[in-house]
Order: sequence, then C-alpha cells, then structure tokens
Amino acid sequence: MRITALAGGVGGARFLRGLLHHLESVSGPDAAPHDLTIVANTGDDITLFGLRVSPDIDTLLYTLGGGISEAQGWGRAEESHRVQSELAAYGAQPQWFGLGDLDFATHIVRSQWLGQGATLSEVTSRLASRWGLPDRGVRVMPMTDAPVETHVVVEDEQGQRAIHFQEWWVRHGATLPAQRFVVAGLDRAAPAPGVLEAIRDADVILLPPSNPVVSIGIILGIPGVRDALRGSRAPVVGVSPLIDGQPVRGHADACLAAIGVPSTSVAVAGLYEDFLDAWLIDPADAGIRLPRARVAIHQGPLLMRDVESAADIAGAALALATGLRP
Amino acid sequence: MRITALAGGVGGARFLRGLLHHLESVSGPDAAPHDLTIVANTGDDITLFGLRVSPDIDTLLYTLGGGISEAQGWGRAEESHRVQSELAAYGAQPQWFGLGDLDFATHIVRSQWLGQGATLSEVTSRLASRWGLPDRGVRVMPMTDAPVETHVVVEDEQGQRAIHFQEWWVRHGATLPAQRFVVAGLDRAAPAPGVLEAIRDADVILLPPSNPVVSIGIILGIPGVRDALRGSRAPVVGVSPLIDGQPVRGHADACLAAIGVPSTSVAVAGLYEDFLDAWLIDPADAGIRLPRARVAIHQGPLLMRDVESAADIAGAALALATGLRP
Repeated sequence: MRITALAGGVGGARFLRGLLHHLESVSGPDAAPHDLTIVANTGDDITLFGLRVSPDIDTLLYTLGGGISEAQGWGRAEESHRVQSELAAYGAQPQWFGLGDLDFATHIVRSQWLGQGATLSEVTSRLASRWGLPDRGVRVMPMTDAPVETHVVVEDEQGQRAIHFQEWWVRHGATLPAQRFVVAGLDRAAPAPGVLEAIRDADVILLPPSNPVVSIGIILGIPGVRDALRGSRAPVVGVSPLIDGQPVRGHADACLAAIGVPSTSVAVAGLYEDFLDAWLIDPADAGIRLPRARVAIHQGPLLMRDVESAADIAGAALALATGLRP
Repeated sequence: MRITALAGGVGGARFLRGLLHHLESVSGPDAAPHDLTIVANTGDDITLFGLRVSPDIDTLLYTLGGGISEAQGWGRAEESHRVQSELAAYGAQPQWFGLGDLDFATHIVRSQWLGQGATLSEVTSRLASRWGLPDRGVRVMPMTDAPVETHVVVEDEQGQRAIHFQEWWVRHGATLPAQRFVVAGLDRAAPAPGVLEAIRDADVILLPPSNPVVSIGIILGIPGVRDALRGSRAPVVGVSPLIDGQPVRGHADACLAAIGVPSTSVAVAGLYEDFLDAWLIDPADAGIRLPRARVAIHQGPLLMRDVESAADIAGAALALATGLRP
C-alpha cells in the first residue's frame, strides 16, 4: 500500500511515527508491504550561522529514526550545547534559536552537500539513510528544492515589519499578533521531484495533525500540489490538529487568526474541503458539520500521548481511508 | 615598541606567547608599551564540511588567548568531538581532519561572517577580541584576505597528483614524498590591509621558529611582502626552526627537501638572507657560518619546553633586535 502524507514538524512526525508503528506491528508474512512517502514542509527553513536548517525535515527524521528529544519534540536526544555556547562567546547572532551539537552536524552536512550542488531532495534522502528510513519503506522528500521562507508581518512598538517565521515562532512564541504570512519564493517553487507522482500514484493520502496554515498550508501553496490532490483517485483523510478549538501544541490558533479563520476543527477542514474525503476529529468536537456534505466526519480520541496512542490514531485514519478506496 | 612578526602555527604561536609573556613580565610603570602585530600564514587554510578553516590563525588565537590544547599544540583545551562523530554517521567527508566541537564554532562563525561579506582580516580581528588580544596590545592579521591554498604535488602508486597541504600534512603525516608545492592564488594575492605598513613601520621584525617553507615561505610569497622586509629600517631577527638539523616538531625537513634545501639552520637562514639581520641558533648548531657575512649569528637554547623557556628565547631575540636598532 502506497501511503503519501503531507507533514510539518512535531505533530506530523509523532503521527507518522505512530503510523509506522501501526504498519510494522501488523506486518508479517500476511501483511501487505507498505511504502510511505512523506512530503515535508520546508517553509520554516532558515539560514542560521550560515548553515541551512530545515526544522520540519529534521524533526521528521529524528522522530522516525529514534533520535528525537522526546521531552522537546524537536532536536536530538542526549544533546549538548558546546558549539552554541562558543558561538555566543564570539558574539555570533542570532542566539534565540537553540541548536545542539548533534543537531549542528545535520545542518553542517546539509549545507556542505547543498554547497557541493546537491538538491535538498538529494540531501534529505542521504540524511534519511543515516536514520534507517529507506529500509523501513519510508521516503522523506521536501515539498520543493527551491528555497522558500515564511515571513510574518507583525506590528508592535517598532512599527510594522516582516520577521522570519522562526523568529516569530521561537523567539516570540507567536505572541506578536501576526497580520499575515508572506511566503518568499512559494509562487515560483516547483514541487520537488516525485512529489506530484507520490500524490497521483498513492493508494491513500493522509494529512497528519500538522499546522494547517504554516505547515500543510504552505505545502498546498506549491504550484501543482493542490491540483494533484484534487485530481488524485486516492482517498484523502485528514486528522484535525485541534481538540476543542485548541492546538495540542504549537500555535495553530495564532496562525489561523492571522488568516482570519476560526480556530475550530470544522474551519480547518474547510481549508481542505476541495480535496478532503474524510476528517477525523476528537470526541470533544462531536457534532460539528461541514458545509459540504461529501467530507465524512469520524470521531476518535486525537491526543497523542505516546507512540501507542499515536499508532491508534494513525491506524484509525488509515482504516478510514482504506474503507473509502474505490 | 612596535614589533611585527611573521608566523605559522604551533612553533610561531608558542614563540609569540613566550614573547608576550616576556613583554608583560617586564612591563610596569617604567616599561615601554608594546604593540605586537602578527602576520599569519593562511596558506594552510582549507574548506572542510563547507566551513572555512584557518589553522594557523586559530592556533595563534587559541595559544595567545589561553584556549589551546597544550598536549596537541593545536585545537582547543577541554575539547569534545560530538559534531564530528555525528558527521561521520552521516557519511560526511573528509574524516581525516579532526575538528572538535569548540573548534567547530570558530569555523562556523568565521564562515558565517565571511558569507556576510566580511574580509578574513575583519573576521580575524573579531575572533581575536573574544580571546582578549586587543587589550594586550596584540593584533593578528592574515597575510592576505584572498583565498590562498597550498597544494602538494606527490607521486605514489596512484600516480602523480596534487593534494591539499592539509591532506599531505595531517592525513599522511608528510610521509608522501613531496615533489613541489603549488600555492594556488599566491601570485595574485594582495597583502591584507596593514601588512606592509606593519613591516614598514615596525621598530623590530621577528621571524619565529615557524616552518620556513610552508609558513614563513608562503607569507614571503605574497607580492610586496619580501620587498617591504628588504626596505624596512627595522632590524629583522630570525629564530631557527631547526635544532641540529631536526625540526622540534612538524615536518620542516620534509618541506625543505621538497624545495631542494638542506635541513640545516644555515640553509634556512639562507632563505631569508636578503633581509635578515641576525639569526638565533641553538648551541647544537654552533660553528655554522652564513655565506653573507652581514647576518649576525647568535646562540641560545631554542627548545621551547614551556612558556618560560619560550619567553627566554623570545627575550633573547628581542634583545638582539633592540641592539641592532639604528
């Protein structure tokens, strides 16, 4: 079964780790082999200390590969911070984005390979090998090989200005009211090799509970992706990132507010309505109805407390999709 | 007193730390203020993992600033190697050049600042501030802001080929017979801002016991530097890097062999004879005579066992130079 998922960082990574756990726990002589393609958001990417950082790709690789800091949800387990301390001693900027020593190695080698002429797709594939993902039937690909960067237009006592998404998200904790997002490079970014094919040829397409605005919303903005989703014969099943109107983590509510969309599961489903076939919501949101009747609503507890609960949610989404296959 | 020194890595750094120790130990209300300008070899520079590494500058900064690994002579004290281990896990190349985590920070910030448009001179000055050198009257400047890289033509079972100096020196321990050195970019490299002035306006010019071929020899190859030394009114005093024909450390003998010069103190002095005024040799080399009588030969123990013995040697060289001042 060919599964394609569009994903951002922590929420997407935890859901997909659960999916993989689910797939691998039911595997065996009788299980159908699986093939999971993850199209990762790269709109959060940023150049720090001259190094190219792809936060969502790294969170996906570390989480699926067993190297993630469980406590943080991002970054490496058993991390140290000697490089960053030393950079601070030299007065290097910025200091508001914490990078650990092990994490630095990822950014160094990514930047090295990019500098040698490799595409982000090729780099990501090489990084994924170190985490053993190809052997488990998993491909991680960036949404595009073009540099795309999300900026946030904010207004405070310094006046109106655009800051990098990471500065808004990490430095300010999304507390500066966002007026809008400006995604530099998005309109002319070609889908990375294989992205449209992965959507077109999928048996099942999943939307994990990733941020609908700055993760999945950015992927959908890559020219051709939305049309491919509309045109795909595969059922598209999404998992709501909100429980009772609140993001489980992150700042989806602040992002939705910036684009004038209510922070509700139904409103998020509305963003996907032109290609969504089923929408999994938490029982806390029971009773919602979508304007267009064709999207099926299903309930199930959506709080990912651990790998097992994430596997249950992913299994439910997958079962839903399998049931919808033509 | 304005002192200018041309220097390579470990030998030069230890000598200059001794010089600074000597100057600071005689300072006080009656001592003349000193001003030490170090023109550093950058012909060893290399790009590793996409980061620009300036080994001689770093060895100078770490040694003078108190951050050096005493045991190695290069690299940082209390170093760890988590980044490099992780790079190895990703299959990043090369792995024969060991970089520690603290050292990585230097290369990251140097590369970042260079990428922002700063010159190597500006970067070096900013790095030196972190090591407190400006406050001690010390300026470290690269010989040039232009990229210059020394390559070594070797011949082995793989045939004749040119490899980077660091690959020859570090990876092969200078054991592959060198046929010649090719210094890419040297002939069109302009002296860094202040280099010629530091030579012209010096009261005293010192040549520490650095490698005469691949450290001082490279600096002398920068167009204008040798003429400035010939034209300077300051006495030029050199310290032999050889004791009884042997380098105390490093591979000066292999480098001299490659350019067809005997591995002797007198032969090394011959390389500088057009601008050298006095040459300090070890008692083990007593009795040597230079072809040109104008270079004064002086004896003193040249083994730098610690900061104090290096200070004694530097003090002797300085006294020699002061005695020669017009």
